[in-house]
Parts: sequence; structure tokens; C-alpha cells
Amino acid sequence: MSKQTRQLHLNAFLHGTGHHEAAWRHPDVDPRAELGLDHYVGIARAAERGKLDSLFLADGLAISHNITYNVHHSFEPLTLLSALATATSRIGLIATASTTYNQPYSLARALASVDRISGGRAGWNIVTSAGQGEARNFNLADRPDHAARYERANEFLETAKALWDSWADDAVVADKASGIYSDVGKIRSIDHHGKHFQVRGPLNLPRPIQGHPLLVQAGSSEAGKEFAARHAEAVFTAHLSVDAAREFYADLKGRLGRYGRSASELLILPGISAYLGDTVEEAQEKYRALNSLANPEYGVRQLSAQLDFELSGYPLDGPLPEIPEGTDGSQSRKKLIVDVAREESLTIRGLTERLAGARGHYTFIGTPAQVADEIELWFSTGAADGFNIMPPTFPGGLDEFVDKVVPLLQERGLFRTEYTGRTLREHYGLARPVVTEAEVQPDDLELRRPA
Amino acid sequence: MSKQTRQLHLNAFLHGTGHHEAAWRHPDVDPRAELGLDHYVGIARAAERGKLDSLFLADGLAISHNITYNVHHSFEPLTLLSALATATSRIGLIATASTTYNQPYSLARALASVDRISGGRAGWNIVTSAGQGEARNFNLADRPDHAARYERANEFLETAKALWDSWADDAVVADKASGIYSDVGKIRSIDHHGKHFQVRGPLNLPRPIQGHPLLVQAGSSEAGKEFAARHAEAVFTAHLSVDAAREFYADLKGRLGRYGRSASELLILPGISAYLGDTVEEAQEKYRALNSLANPEYGVRQLSAQLDFELSGYPLDGPLPEIPEGTDGSQSRKKLIVDVAREESLTIRGLTERLAGARGHYTFIGTPAQVADEIELWFSTGAADGFNIMPPTFPGGLDEFVDKVVPLLQERGLFRTEYTGRTLREHYGLARPVVTEAEVQPDDLELRRPA
Repeated sequence: MSKQTRQLHLNAFLHGTGHHEAAWRHPDVDPRAELGLDHYVGIARAAERGKLDSLFLADGLAISHNITYNVHHSFEPLTLLSALATATSRIGLIATASTTYNQPYSLARALASVDRISGGRAGWNIVTSAGQGEARNFNLADRPDHAARYERANEFLETAKALWDSWADDAVVADKASGIYSDVGKIRSIDHHGKHFQVRGPLNLPRPIQGHPLLVQAGSSEAGKEFAARHAEAVFTAHLSVDAAREFYADLKGRLGRYGRSASELLILPGISAYLGDTVEEAQEKYRALNSLANPEYGVRQLSAQLDFELSGYPLDGPLPEIPEGTDGSQSRKKLIVDVAREESLTIRGLTERLAGARGHYTFIGTPAQVADEIELWFSTGAADGFNIMPPTFPGGLDEFVDKVVPLLQERGLFRTEYTGRTLREHYGLARPVVTEAEVQPDDLELRRPA
Repeated sequence: MSKQTRQLHLNAFLHGTGHHEAAWRHPDVDPRAELGLDHYVGIARAAERGKLDSLFLADGLAISHNITYNVHHSFEPLTLLSALATATSRIGLIATASTTYNQPYSLARALASVDRISGGRAGWNIVTSAGQGEARNFNLADRPDHAARYERANEFLETAKALWDSWADDAVVADKASGIYSDVGKIRSIDHHGKHFQVRGPLNLPRPIQGHPLLVQAGSSEAGKEFAARHAEAVFTAHLSVDAAREFYADLKGRLGRYGRSASELLILPGISAYLGDTVEEAQEKYRALNSLANPEYGVRQLSAQLDFELSGYPLDGPLPEIPEGTDGSQSRKKLIVDVAREESLTIRGLTERLAGARGHYTFIGTPAQVADEIELWFSTGAADGFNIMPPTFPGGLDEFVDKVVPLLQERGLFRTEYTGRTLREHYGLARPVVTEAEVQPDDLELRRPA
């Protein structure tokens, strides 16, 4: 077994009973499984058996427009991942949470709480919540525009980081003899007064085990890429070809320098949905069988939401109409979809079929060895630092990946055979943020008298 | 063993390493235990071994003014209780969360999520966050006044209940043959347009297993009692004597009628902190030993915060000065404390000692049989439907209660010997809220087209 220094990072992307839109109708799938905890405990343990770096739960703050045909995002991520912390011991736990519809104090604290509960395994997938339905659940008639959301997100991140750093790592003394529990000279207010937030602090929880939870991001618009270059340590992204992935990879890594960061401080993990068979024909048959369960009406609704453009009035077997660029929705995924429709001259129906498996992420159909080759190709040619694994069905598709693909990657020396670290940052090979003495100055008398 | 219909309800009140303010300095206590999950897993399993109804975690959204001498409220309740759901199977899980610094959509969803994750064991201790420090962590210069907080709390509750009821219990169809996952005729928008919140809904999660999580409340001011009579199903309360408890019990139960509710629809659980010994002398020695570890400076700060009045300039061995009534802080606890100081002619030092064990809750010192007698007295004479158990130290004080007091209550037929239900509502003997057909009307076309 050859060993090389740079190793793959693999994340299991949780998604109800599977990433294929018809997964719940698959004969092997219990369609109500995603409404209970046991389903997720089984998935988490399978991923940990495969020594994967992390689990990730996407999220939205409004009901799916496609609720008739599917349920997703039912569990609130922080509560589900906390529950999974108790059922696992090593795997990282990445929760999606919105900067637009949360407050920094509450969210920084909940993430710090999950980090301590899990022994240093928490990650935060930072989203700005592009949906119109989300705005209407949070006192707004319309979603804030793209620029406003990212402006708030930047201030949110600054505030959250200051709160995590409001306790020095050694602020808890717990000295029974003197009766001193905390050294208040190592705990400070943050006194943040910004455009969106006013937060005094300090946080009411000692510093997270990881310093900060791992910061993850997935938006790929211009503003999204700048935000990632500034704050993110891992990026989940979607590409339909290795060439597009390489272009994105070079672009994003190239932006890090202007924030004083090096290329190794941010890992890029494209999504991959693998349909596996002992032969290519068997894999193709699996893909075909799932696609035959897909509902064209579901596909058109899904596409309309992704494009932020109502397609139900257009002929299913006609071309995709002109889609206005817009500025408010999720821009990067829209561009990817419009581009593939044009490049491959797809009808609306053809486009929905193209996206049924993984919503615009890369779909691979073949044998375990072929998938391993593809992963190695992306990894070794500047397209990926690892992958966001999107099994077509749960739990079967993940078990298959863990049992058939992971061992091949391990044999090639591309992936760990045992966990070597305890924390999510250690799995990803990322440094623990340091708080300098100068940053934690003794507070004024605020902490010394009743609030 | 005699059986009687009416049975006690017992809740274990989580509180770091113990309810005595010097618990962390006790020789048997690991003072850093409260910073990790294992401590709480052990407590949860001990409480479940004792067949207790529930666990409860109090909370605040700002650092303690007394951080030098103690740490409390470190974990965010919803994340900690989710983690404990996986480590237990029957016991209820009651999380404190604020109506002043949350949004109904997020909190209703997180609670629904914990309810499903735990198989129907979630409860919500509703607080309005009286602290000045809390306001300053959430964009405000000053806390909203008492009346404004309760006004918002009422609107919050109406909105949260409507969100939980936005799915009929049988809205998930999951019919593989037809491809229909949800019956959208059984899912509705709530279109709430109020003074504090505008929420379209529906929730993005099927109805909680319990219909609504169990609703718990602890405020005992006039506004607090009215709020409890309207919404709460269990009330945690603090009294220093059985007479005061009886008066409160009659008062609160008497208010239920005006909201169309009967006395059995709300359970009243006073706090009790029991110092146990095989003899009275042994119990007294335990109490004395913990008190000797208490720090007078801590006590004065704690008292200043509870009274919303700075006492550090007053002589420790002089009388409590005149305390202005005020309108903004937590009013009911303030009155209880001032009353006991006057009735028992206590100095400031004497008052801090009186409160060191359980912050104004009832402290009992004696043998297990004597505590069981006291519990039976309160239970059978209109002072309590059960108790909020506040062990002086964790885990030792809870183990002692479970192993020595619970068996006596079981022998007397006052407490269950096995769980008979699965959900928290079943443990408490409370009905599952029903949604009528009329309440869930088919939505307009909103759900049928992309948001």
C-alpha cells in the first residue's frame, strides 16, 4: 500500500432517503424512515465505519414547493446532529444554518454547544437563505437581495468569531481551594456595534474545543466565492464535468491570497452521486430504474425553483426558454443548469432527467473501480481536495460506497484506514484558530458586578 | 402496595454539578464535569433508572455575573437535550427557550425536531428573558419591559401552536405506487400577521409526535400566572414553605377556568432540594459542609442579581435595605426573597446562607423517610402535583434521591414503578392536542407552485 501525504477528504451528504428525487419510491427504501432518528443513526454509523471525515445536513427554512412528491430537510440540523453526536465517536457533524434568519449570539452558542457535546466535531455550513418562502416565515414580504444577504453574513461571521474568542482557552480555572472557577481576566466583552448587530458578549460558554467550529460554505456566485475565500475552510460545490470543477478550483484557490490565506487553508469538495454495479450495465440499470420512478411534474417544479422561473406553462418537450439572470436567488446553480441545457441542447424534460439524480451535482455510473479512478482523476488534477458523497438512496447507496469504493481508495493510499485525529479540524487537516493574549484583554468591571 | 389514581410527577432539574452554589467545590465532585457530555448522560440515565418523568435544563442568554465563582447554563438546551435523547429511551426532555430572543418559525421547528428525534419526549420551558445582559446580546440597549415581553410571548405561543398544527397528523401518505408523498390538502399556510410576527408557514416538518411539545412555564408574577393559566401544562415554581405553596397552587388552579381549562390540565411542581442522611444529624452535617464552602461575595452578587438591586455597598451583617419593587426583572422571585428576609429577620449574610442551597426553592434536611413524608404532605394537601428535584450535587445527590427516596414513594403507591407511556405527555397524564378537520383546510395554490 503506497502512502502519500495529501489525502482525500470525504463527506457524507445526508438527504432524506436519498439524493435521487425518486429514492423514496425505490423498492428497498422505507419511505417514512426519514421521519425518525434511527434512519440517521444507521447512516452516521455507516459513514463512521468508512472513516469518512464528516456528515453534512443541508437545510432550508420553508416548506418545499414540492411537498406533494417528496419530503426533505425535515429535521432541524443542530438538533439532529447533536443527537448523532451521542451515537458516534469520531465523525464530524456539519450543520447548515442561516446568517439571514439567525442572531449571532444564539447561533454561535448553539454551534459551540454542539462542538463541546461532540468532543470537537462541529462544523457550520453557512448559508444566506435565498428563498422567497423563507423570508415570509421571518416577518419579511420579500427576501433581502443578494448583496444585502452577503453583507449581513460578513458581519455575522465577524461577530460569531469574536464571541467564540471571547474566552481564552484557559479561562476555566476550577480551583476548589481558592474557590475561583473562571479567570475573568481571560474573558472579555466583544462590544460589537455594527450595521446589522449590536452584541455585547461575552459568550456564556467556554471556547469551543476546536476554537471555532469548522466553517463551510456552498454558494458559488461571485459574492459567494469572495465570502468563501475570506471565511470558509471547506466548500461544497456542484459541477457537471471535471473541466468545470478545475476552473472553479483554480478560481477559488486563487482568491485566498487577498485575504492572507494559503491554498491549503480551504478544501474544495464537489458533490458526486455514484450509481454502482459490478458491471457498467448493472450500474446503468440501477440508474434507469430510479429514473423510471421520477415524476416529470416534480422535475419541472424543482427546476422552476432552481431557476427562480416558473416553467409549468412551457411544453415539456420544448426547449428551455430564455431565463432572466436576476439577482436575488441562488445564482451559481442557476447558471450551471442553464449552461448544461444549452450545451447539451436539452428539452425541459431532458433537463429534468439530467438533474433527477443529484440536482446538478456530478453523476457517475459505473463499477467501484471506475468511480475510484474518477475520484483519483479529479483529486490529482486540480479539480477537488475530496468529495461530497451523495448516495442515490439511503442507507443502501452509502453502504455500497463505504464497502466497495472506500477500500479501493484506501488501497491506493488516497484515504485514511483509521481516524488519526479526534476533531473535525484534525480530520480535515486544518489548524485550530488561536486567540492571542493581546486579543483577550481583561474586561472592565462589567463582569465583576451583577448585570 | 397500595395504588391510588393520582400519582406524583417528578422532574430532575439539571444544573451543572449541583444546585448548591458551592457544589463544584465538594470533594466528590469533578468541577469540570459540566463542560462535557458524559456528566449529563450519567445524570439522564440515573433519572431514567428512577422512572422520573423528565429532565429540565434552565437557561439564560448572557454570561453569569458570577462567572468568577461558578459556571452554569453552559450548554444550549435544545442541543444538549437532543444529545441526551439518543442516550435514553423514555424520559422527557424539557428545554428552556426564550420568546423574546427567538423567532417562532425557528423555535417551533427545533422543538418539533427534538420531539421527533426523541420519539415524543420534548417539552418547552417558556421564558421571556428578564435580564439586562440578555438584551445587550440581542441588539437592544435595554430589556423590553415586563408587559411587552408577555405580550410578545402570547403572540409567539399562538404562532408556534398554529405552526405545529399546520400539518394534519395524517398528512404524510408516502404512497410509492401513486408517487404521492404528502397530501397537501392536509397541510396549510398559517398566514399570521400580528404585532410582533408575520409568518406564512406551514412548518417544514410533519406534526410533532406529541401534537405539541409539552408546554412548561416558571414565572410566578401576575402576568406569569395568567400566561401559565392560558398556555402552560406544567409549572415549575419556588416556595419556602408548604403554606406558600398551597396558596400559589389554589391561586393558579383557580385561574384555569377563565381559559376554559380544568384543574387537571396543568401540573404544579415546586422545587425541592433534599439533603439526605441516614440520620438527621448526618443530613445536617452534609448541609453544613456544603455551606462552609460557599463564598459570601458570590452570595451577595447572586442576591443582587435576584433582587435587581446592587447590595455590595451594604454591610454583610446588617439588615436587607429597602428594595424598590420595579417592573422589569423577574418579579415573583424578588418578592419571595424579600418576604423571607423580613419574616425571619435575616441579615444580608443570613439571607445569602438561606438561599445558598437552592436559590429560594424549598430545602429539606433529613432522612429519606422524612423527605418522602414531606413530599406526600405537599402532594396530598393541595400544595403540589409533583416536584422539581434539585440535588445539591450531581451526580451523587440525584443517585441518592433515586436510590433512597423514589423506592419509598413507590412503596406508598405515590409513584410509578415502570414507565407506562412512551411520550412525555403520557408520563404527565396530559392529553395530546387535537387538530380538527376544520382547522386544516386545503391551502390555496401556494403549495402547488414553486415558492
